[in-house]
Parts: sequence; C-alpha cells; structure tokens
Amino acid sequence: MKQRKIVLSEKELPTQWYNIQPDLPTPLEPPLHPGTGNPVGPDDLSPIFPMPLILQEVSQERFIDIPEEVLEKYLIWRPTPLYRAYTLEKYLETPAKIYFKNEGVSPAGSHKPNTALPQAYYNKISGTKRICTETGAGQWGSALSFCCALFGLECKVYMVKISYNQKPYRRIMMETWGATCVPSPSTETESGRMILAGHPDSPGSLGIAISEAVEAAVTGENSKYALGSVLNHVLLHQTINGLECQKQMAIAGDYPDVVIGCAGGGSNFAGMALPFVRDKINGKDIDIIGVEPASCPTMTRGPFAYDFGDTVQKTPLLAMHTLGHSFVPAPIHAGGLRYHGMAPIVSQLIMDNIIRAEAVPQLETFQAGITFARTEGFISAPETDHAIAMVIREAVKAREEGKEKVILFNWSGHGLVDMAAYEAYLSGQLSDHALPEEEIHRALEDIAPLPKPKQYKPGTIS
Amino acid sequence: MKQRKIVLSEKELPTQWYNIQPDLPTPLEPPLHPGTGNPVGPDDLSPIFPMPLILQEVSQERFIDIPEEVLEKYLIWRPTPLYRAYTLEKYLETPAKIYFKNEGVSPAGSHKPNTALPQAYYNKISGTKRICTETGAGQWGSALSFCCALFGLECKVYMVKISYNQKPYRRIMMETWGATCVPSPSTETESGRMILAGHPDSPGSLGIAISEAVEAAVTGENSKYALGSVLNHVLLHQTINGLECQKQMAIAGDYPDVVIGCAGGGSNFAGMALPFVRDKINGKDIDIIGVEPASCPTMTRGPFAYDFGDTVQKTPLLAMHTLGHSFVPAPIHAGGLRYHGMAPIVSQLIMDNIIRAEAVPQLETFQAGITFARTEGFISAPETDHAIAMVIREAVKAREEGKEKVILFNWSGHGLVDMAAYEAYLSGQLSDHALPEEEIHRALEDIAPLPKPKQYKPGTIS
Repeated sequence: MKQRKIVLSEKELPTQWYNIQPDLPTPLEPPLHPGTGNPVGPDDLSPIFPMPLILQEVSQERFIDIPEEVLEKYLIWRPTPLYRAYTLEKYLETPAKIYFKNEGVSPAGSHKPNTALPQAYYNKISGTKRICTETGAGQWGSALSFCCALFGLECKVYMVKISYNQKPYRRIMMETWGATCVPSPSTETESGRMILAGHPDSPGSLGIAISEAVEAAVTGENSKYALGSVLNHVLLHQTINGLECQKQMAIAGDYPDVVIGCAGGGSNFAGMALPFVRDKINGKDIDIIGVEPASCPTMTRGPFAYDFGDTVQKTPLLAMHTLGHSFVPAPIHAGGLRYHGMAPIVSQLIMDNIIRAEAVPQLETFQAGITFARTEGFISAPETDHAIAMVIREAVKAREEGKEKVILFNWSGHGLVDMAAYEAYLSGQLSDHALPEEEIHRALEDIAPLPKPKQYKPGTIS
Repeated sequence: MKQRKIVLSEKELPTQWYNIQPDLPTPLEPPLHPGTGNPVGPDDLSPIFPMPLILQEVSQERFIDIPEEVLEKYLIWRPTPLYRAYTLEKYLETPAKIYFKNEGVSPAGSHKPNTALPQAYYNKISGTKRICTETGAGQWGSALSFCCALFGLECKVYMVKISYNQKPYRRIMMETWGATCVPSPSTETESGRMILAGHPDSPGSLGIAISEAVEAAVTGENSKYALGSVLNHVLLHQTINGLECQKQMAIAGDYPDVVIGCAGGGSNFAGMALPFVRDKINGKDIDIIGVEPASCPTMTRGPFAYDFGDTVQKTPLLAMHTLGHSFVPAPIHAGGLRYHGMAPIVSQLIMDNIIRAEAVPQLETFQAGITFARTEGFISAPETDHAIAMVIREAVKAREEGKEKVILFNWSGHGLVDMAAYEAYLSGQLSDHALPEEEIHRALEDIAPLPKPKQYKPGTIS
C-alpha cells in the first residue's frame, strides 16, 4: 500500500526556528519612524511589543531556540502531516509528484497559531496581562485568542465591522476561547471615535482596526499589541513549518523542484519557503513561488518602496512591495490576502530574484478548491485555494513538458468556517474583480512623496 | 518534554474491523419486517443495501478484513492521534489520567467517514451509481458526500428542512463535494408530497427524511440507501477507532479504567467501546459509559423493546432501547444525539450489564466544552461535549476518591461548523429542556402494541 502521508513523531519536532536574516544576500532596509523618517530602534517599539520579540525582529542569529513551554504547546497540533496528493496527480494526469503540508489540523484550523503561540508566551514572560490585536475575517484573531487562553492572558480583538456582522463564526470562536471581540471602528478608542464621527456607518477596514488595537495596547495597563504577519519575528516563528517539511521530504526520499504558498502579508508562504530559500542560496535549484490574488497584486504589480503598514499612517514605514497604504482591495473571499503590503523579507527576496510571484484570479482559485476537495477530500480556505490553483498550473505544465517534477505546497488551512464563499462560487455569484491600471496608479500616488529604499524597480538587483 | 499525543504510523493502521456479534453473551434479537412481523432476511434488505453490507450486518466472523481500497483512503485521515489531556487534568486537579482520541481530523471533521467510506466502497463494487440518505444537522450527509466523491458516486441527501434553512454550512460542504442536497419534506418523493399536502409548512424530521431517502433509493435507477448509525455494519466499521486506541494505549503504557463516548444512534460510542467490551467480556475490569442528553434519554429512561427506526413506521423493527418512534426530542444543539432509538448492539450490552449509560443536561455539556477549549485548545462538537461532561464528572470523582484512574474518551468531532450553538450558550439563551415523565409516557404508548423481545426491563439479564 502506498504511503499517503509522512507523520513525524513528537521527538522530531524542530526545537529551533530558522532566521533567514544572516543569510539574506541583501540586508533588509531598516523600518523608519512614521514621524521623523529615521530608522526605528528597539525603544521605539517597546510600548507595543515585549522585548524578546523586538530582539527577534532584528536578530542576526541563524537558529533561535524555541522555549520549552512553547514546544510543549506546539505539540497540541504539531508536527503536522505531509501528504502526497496521489488522487489529484491521477486526476490531472500529471507526471509531477505533488506534496502538501496540512496546517489545518490546529485548533484554529490554520497556520496562524504557529506564531500566535510564541507571541503569547513571550508576552506572558514579559509581564503582559492583555494582548490587543486586529483581525479581518478572523483567522488571526481566533488563533491569538486560542493561544492567549493557553497562557491565561486576556485577549482583545478589534474585528473589521463588516466581517464582524457578516462572518460571526470566527468571532464566536474567539469568545469560546475567552477573548473579547468588538466591531471596529468602535467607540472604545480615540481612533475609532474619530472615524465614527466622520462616518457613523463605516464598515471598517484592517487599517482602522490596526490603529484601534495599537492605541488600546499603548494606553491600556500591562497591554501589548500583536501582529499576525508581515514582520520578521512572525515569519521566523512560521519557519517551524518549512523545517518540518524538510525532514518529511527527506523521509519521502524526494526534494522539491517547486515550492508554492499563498501570500497575503507573507508569513504563511515564508514559513514554508524560507528553509528552502536557504538551500537555494546555498546552490539548490528550486522554483519558489508566492501566490497572490489578481485583484490585490502586491508582489506582481506593486513597486518595492517604503510605505505604511496601515491606512492612517501611524505604523513605521517598511521597505516592501506595496500597492499604497490607501489601496482598497476588491471584496474577494480570501480575506487574508487582502493587504496592500508584503513582508519585507519576502519583498527583498523577490527583488533579489530568489523567489518569484504569481497572481491568480478568484474564479480559478475556487475551481481549484473544488477539484482538491473532490480528489484529496479536504475543503480548503479561500486563501489556500490560491496555492492550489498555482499547483494545478505547474502540474499541468509538467504534464505538457513530460517532466516528473516534485511540487510542494502549503495547505495553510481548512475552509469549514468559510463555506459561504463556496456557496457564492457554486451559485455563480462570484467574479474575478479584474483590477484596472488606473486604480493601481491612483493608490500608488500615495507612495511617491515618501523616502525610497535603495532598490525600487521589481526584478532588479541594486 | 512530556509526550502529548501518540501517533501511529500508516503501517500500524488496523487492517480488520472487529465484529462483536460472535462475542455477545446474549445474541441479538432479529429485526422484524414492519408489515409481517417476521424476521427480516437478506432478500428483504437487498433493495436498499448492497449485499456485502447486508452480509456484514449478520456476520458471525469475529474479524473482517478491510478492503485494500478502503485502507488506502482511510489514510486520508487515519490513524488519528490519541492525546493525553494534561492541561485539563491540571485544571481539574485530578489524579486521573485523561486520554482522548481526536476524530476531528477527518475532512468532514468527525468520526462519520469511518463508515461512510466503506459504505461508498461496497456500493461502488456492487454496481450502485447513486446513494441516497437523510441527514439532520448534516454531519452524516457531509461525510457520505465526501466519501462518494472519492469513489465517483452520486450522492443525494434529504436534509431536515429546519436544519437546511438554519444551518447552511454543512449543506454547502455536501455541494462542494458534489452531492445534491434537498430540504425534506420535498416534492420529489411520494412520502414528501404526502407530508406537504397535510402540512405545507412542515419543518421536517429525521423520520420523514429517512422515508424520503429510502423511497428514492428503492425507486431510483442503480440507487441504494445508506444509514450513518444504529445498524450492526455501521458499528463494525467504526471499530477501527477503538482498535487504534488499543494500540495507542499500549504504547502509552496505560489501560483504561473508564471508557466514555457520547451516543445518539450509538455508532460513535460503540466504535471506540466495542474492542474494550471484548476485553471486558474476557475478564478485564472496565467501566464503559455511553452518554446521552437528559432531554433524549433513550438508554436511561427508554425500555428495551421492538420499535421502528423511523416515525412513519416503514423500517424494520429493531430490538433496542427506545423512547418510542413518535418521540420528538427537544431542540437541543447536539442534533446527532436527538434520536428516539439506540443501536441494538449497544442496547443489548446495556441489558447484559456490560456497559452503562448516563444522561447529562445541555448546560453542563456546553460548560464542559468551554473548559475543554480553554485548556486543551480544541472546540468540540455539541455532541462531543456530552462525553467531555461525563469525563469531568469522572475526573472530579477520582479526585474526591484519591484514585489515579485512567479515563479514555472519544473526541468525536470539532465544533467549528456549530459555533451558533456556542454563541447561544455564551449569551445565556440555552436551557436544559428537562423532560417531564408524562411526555415519555405519551411517546412510549406507541411501543406497547408491538411484539416484545425476550428481555424488557433495563438492567436485568434474561
């Protein structure tokens, strides 16, 4: 009988995260203070993050030990299984071998707890009593709520109001884990009240919710803020996934020719990809592809520039691929991929031509998700469907070229809390939300007055 | 670092199911024809089930080989992990060791595919093109849809109308896997039309949906019917779970003093319990507890009698604990436990004092689910919360008695598609639905005119 999945024992759980910073061919540009434009130092960040996370953000140590208490609780869902997608291969009549990592087995149903757990832990040991955060569709908010429960921390989540009203399930998950979740803009913060004064019916946005969460963290007693993607320490924590994959691929006796992940802020993609990026820097030939929605094409159509992380220009400026902080993505169902920026590490690796990006339209992603569900059995999150669509493209290409490629992708989460999106697709209500050039240009105008990092054009190395 | 879960390799997957029939101290009473009252033979069942399943229903073979194709597809989610609930133990300050089997990792999120998969397989090899079934909240309908997709079978699900309208997520799961799901009563069958003629606004019931599915199977081309619990072959397939548990407990170096599962039709409970029942018959001292809702107390307050499986009296009569086929359970959120009858095998084992039953009220189950989510991390299905409530009672008892008991329970599924139930609980909208004696008496009157099996009173051995 053919082996379908490779399962590591608990003893094989990686005990260190991989930090790519010392291995980057081009060092990261420093974040800049939103007011002064000067590089941000640890002290600037200490009101919002606990010091161990700030130090990880700038660490040049290649491998960082995972604390014992974090390892113990990682075991709730890790190591996660690596699957060989035999049925999908057969359906596609491809000579390619397709592997996927199942990150959907966590209690929150996605990869997000990989960083929520250590973030809760480092806050706990630093004396934080309450963590404040924002969430869009709720993947991150629910993951953080779950991990705060494990460490006895309070958790306050500002959830974009339109999602709060339309997608109650993840909000109830947060409450089941003991967190408090309020619709944003709220009347609880000055930022929220300011927005509501001008727009009483505001549906909210991730940018507004970030402002509220940061304000609540800064003004609250023993409170800190947490971010679920983009930053270096978040990507660091997610590398436990790629490190497991490397062990599992070795057991399978294969090595990937292609590594694929969907990318919103970049942490899910990077979590799997970075350990393979290291191999590539050391000489391996791998095609590493981040997949984004065609309607929010940060990596494929946004320049590499300094920009704010939020709409209201309060966060530090990061050097990254960006569509401009005022860009409002179309209401696609992959809420986790609707972000104007991209993790600086991922952005820099694109600039250095080490990884590449592809954009796929919404309808193709749902068709891919349906194909996956009817072959491999699992119903994927709409975000994950972006990776699957790219896998299918690559597998079909392998068939056309007659090549027995090894494709590895990150199955970042299940879609059981996102069934309304599938219903919309199955009933023909979805569209691709093609993005006109003018709309991008309009949003990009906001970036122009800002200081520019040394490299500007995608695809060139300075 | 303490081991949190015991994970079997794919090679350790059991290759046979355990059939308890040859080991039962009292043989099962035969099912009776609803019209003639005579014992039902294989030919009576052949219009609705394929022959391999009919033969399993009456098999006296102790171990039955699992076909290779079923084993291959079991590997999509099996073997499932066995967890040690350290955090819950600590929270309860109990000397008891608590183990739970995580059946929530299947694509459908529950134990149901354990039997949906072989049922789809045996239908496929018997020439069935389409399987018809009923579903209440949708756990069974979604599991069967998933497994029909794997074998390229059509799947038609009659879903109780009130659930169809109120709980769309599992219906969309079915459609994502390619099944057709219609609200019952429907206009597609004579049974449905008959009900609608009298009650155009009928919210439907499991009894009506069964009638529709059976009718569709009998009248449709190459169509068969499938049932998700109660019958012997369904319990047989579920034993793969208990057989895995036995291997895992041996690896853990423990043997359970107490085995607990929630019981609606009985297959989830029996799937874990029956291999341990065999040990008990062979001399082991184990307390084996089926847990049911206090508002639908089939095992604890229903007599052991011949009764119909459906409301409209079309199915064979089974010798079982029953509240009467006209009993309408309160609208508790554990939809999978709202059934008037109980599997004949489970019922017979209760009569023989080999297993016992306990009933728990709804509020206690949700409180248990919240405790579990905030300690062990996983959000449970409302059905599963019944088992957890009992585990907590037993763990507290162990603390009071100062005994280091080993408790094993079946964590039969996650609750991520049931979050509305948690919201209702958290907002104080739920009640226990205490069941007045008169209501039971009224429903039981329907049983009286029927032929009685040899044993009648619970708790006595004939």
